[in-house]
Amino acid sequence: MKTYIGIDLGGTNVRVAKITENGEVLAQVKGPSYGTEGPAKVMANLKAMVRELPGWKDCSGMGVGVPGPVNTAAGTMVLSTNLPGFAGYPFADELTKEFGMPAFLDNDANVAGLAEALVGAGKGLKTVFYVTISTGIGGVLVVNGETVSGKHGFGGEIANIIIDRNREKINYLNVGAVENEASGTAITRKGKAAFGDEIEHAGMVFEKAEAGDEKAVEIIEGMQKDLGQLFATIACVCDPDIFVIGGGMTKSADKFLPGVIAQYKAMSHTAVHDTPFVIAGLEEPGIIGAAMLPVSKGY
Amino acid sequence: MKTYIGIDLGGTNVRVAKITENGEVLAQVKGPSYGTEGPAKVMANLKAMVRELPGWKDCSGMGVGVPGPVNTAAGTMVLSTNLPGFAGYPFADELTKEFGMPAFLDNDANVAGLAEALVGAGKGLKTVFYVTISTGIGGVLVVNGETVSGKHGFGGEIANIIIDRNREKINYLNVGAVENEASGTAITRKGKAAFGDEIEHAGMVFEKAEAGDEKAVEIIEGMQKDLGQLFATIACVCDPDIFVIGGGMTKSADKFLPGVIAQYKAMSHTAVHDTPFVIAGLEEPGIIGAAMLPVSKGY
Repeated sequence: MKTYIGIDLGGTNVRVAKITENGEVLAQVKGPSYGTEGPAKVMANLKAMVRELPGWKDCSGMGVGVPGPVNTAAGTMVLSTNLPGFAGYPFADELTKEFGMPAFLDNDANVAGLAEALVGAGKGLKTVFYVTISTGIGGVLVVNGETVSGKHGFGGEIANIIIDRNREKINYLNVGAVENEASGTAITRKGKAAFGDEIEHAGMVFEKAEAGDEKAVEIIEGMQKDLGQLFATIACVCDPDIFVIGGGMTKSADKFLPGVIAQYKAMSHTAVHDTPFVIAGLEEPGIIGAAMLPVSKGY
Repeated sequence: MKTYIGIDLGGTNVRVAKITENGEVLAQVKGPSYGTEGPAKVMANLKAMVRELPGWKDCSGMGVGVPGPVNTAAGTMVLSTNLPGFAGYPFADELTKEFGMPAFLDNDANVAGLAEALVGAGKGLKTVFYVTISTGIGGVLVVNGETVSGKHGFGGEIANIIIDRNREKINYLNVGAVENEASGTAITRKGKAAFGDEIEHAGMVFEKAEAGDEKAVEIIEGMQKDLGQLFATIACVCDPDIFVIGGGMTKSADKFLPGVIAQYKAMSHTAVHDTPFVIAGLEEPGIIGAAMLPVSKGY
């Protein structure tokens, strides 16, 4: 069975693993990423960690998941808020030369979606859309086992989709951008506005809604409509075989997902009502998906 | 050079052509489609027309473009408003058996987009999004030379994307669906509301706007914002290498497209501002795209 090296690189930590083509993690090394210390330090550390993996030389390729948009054709980061100095850095090329195997780079949400598409909930399906709902909202379209990252690596950057243009301007995102209206951060913000600083996280708004508080119910119903519209919009663009949903908010999925699906149906043609909404099930989608990058390119 | 049979089947007319892999039309037969008379009549007529094509036996495959959503995996129409009796009819299978070559079916807007992606404005690009703006609004995503029709054939059915949920309910589409707000039909409707029945088509509203009429300018600026938001939304999902724009409204493209692009930029991350917007240039995208269906499947 073929094996691959998956690397999950964040601003604080990095994980490097040897993974089978079926997504099984055979060996793993974790450590600090030294993300703020610049590419030379980050790359030297990461290369040393790859060499610690037993049997790394037997692998058929490697992939790296990084935060933020990626130019997948060039194998470079487009923006590097959490990894200063990496915008435009020849990341994939350097790894290819260093280890003598094909190396690929993609956004961390994209690789999580790729993992779910290839060896998770979307396995065997042609068109998979992965949505992550946590403090932010992200996603990725996977077609024929390959992420659609697009011209600038912004494919699946659905946070900025406008679901209602008649809202307040919150930050640099569009007025009415779904991330500002339906993410965990948004629910917390709306909860604080309604109940004051007793609200520390979105889960507390869900609890109040469950207890029947009308203001909390209104917030959650608004979120459900906003997310339902997001999914309906995505379905108009690519009509996926499945929506796979990951991210921290899935902890409360039973409290909001049925309402989201009802709203999705209310805003969609009956023909697409049977599209399944499935909670992401892989335990390590970030690192497995990174290892799936060379798989998705035919290696 | 390989050749293919392309069939453009409408409710009224049908065209059948022999086309090279580069999109050159070598021979063409046109006639009535007998679309209202049911599958037996339509198919017998269509098969006879294929046999009239000189050298049809040398072709490597065939494709058919039809109005409405298609289950591309099954090779069947999902809805058949203009071709009664065809919903679920084994269209592609029947042609494959009859002519002994692979046959494929897809939506007519999808095949027009496929033509532009493979041999038109998007030639050589990985991710192409085609948008048609005429009486209605449609489109298709083409990734790696293959249309993303999706689970139910609704991929690219962007007419129903909500660009502003605070509008009037017009018809069966969503409140604020882009087709009801920015299509030729929508501009005509808004023009009639503003100016009365003197407005016969969208072009007359463009003319009034050019002449400086404030109400007409407001209608056109609204359309530009609505379409700009549509393109920005699509870019969030798949970040295409190019937007190719076809359909009857492109006749007035110089009067509205620059404003659409400005609005697209206003609602998009700066990184994606350089995505080109190109007017579709093929003279016969419907029939060329139909012939490209087997090409896109590797035949």
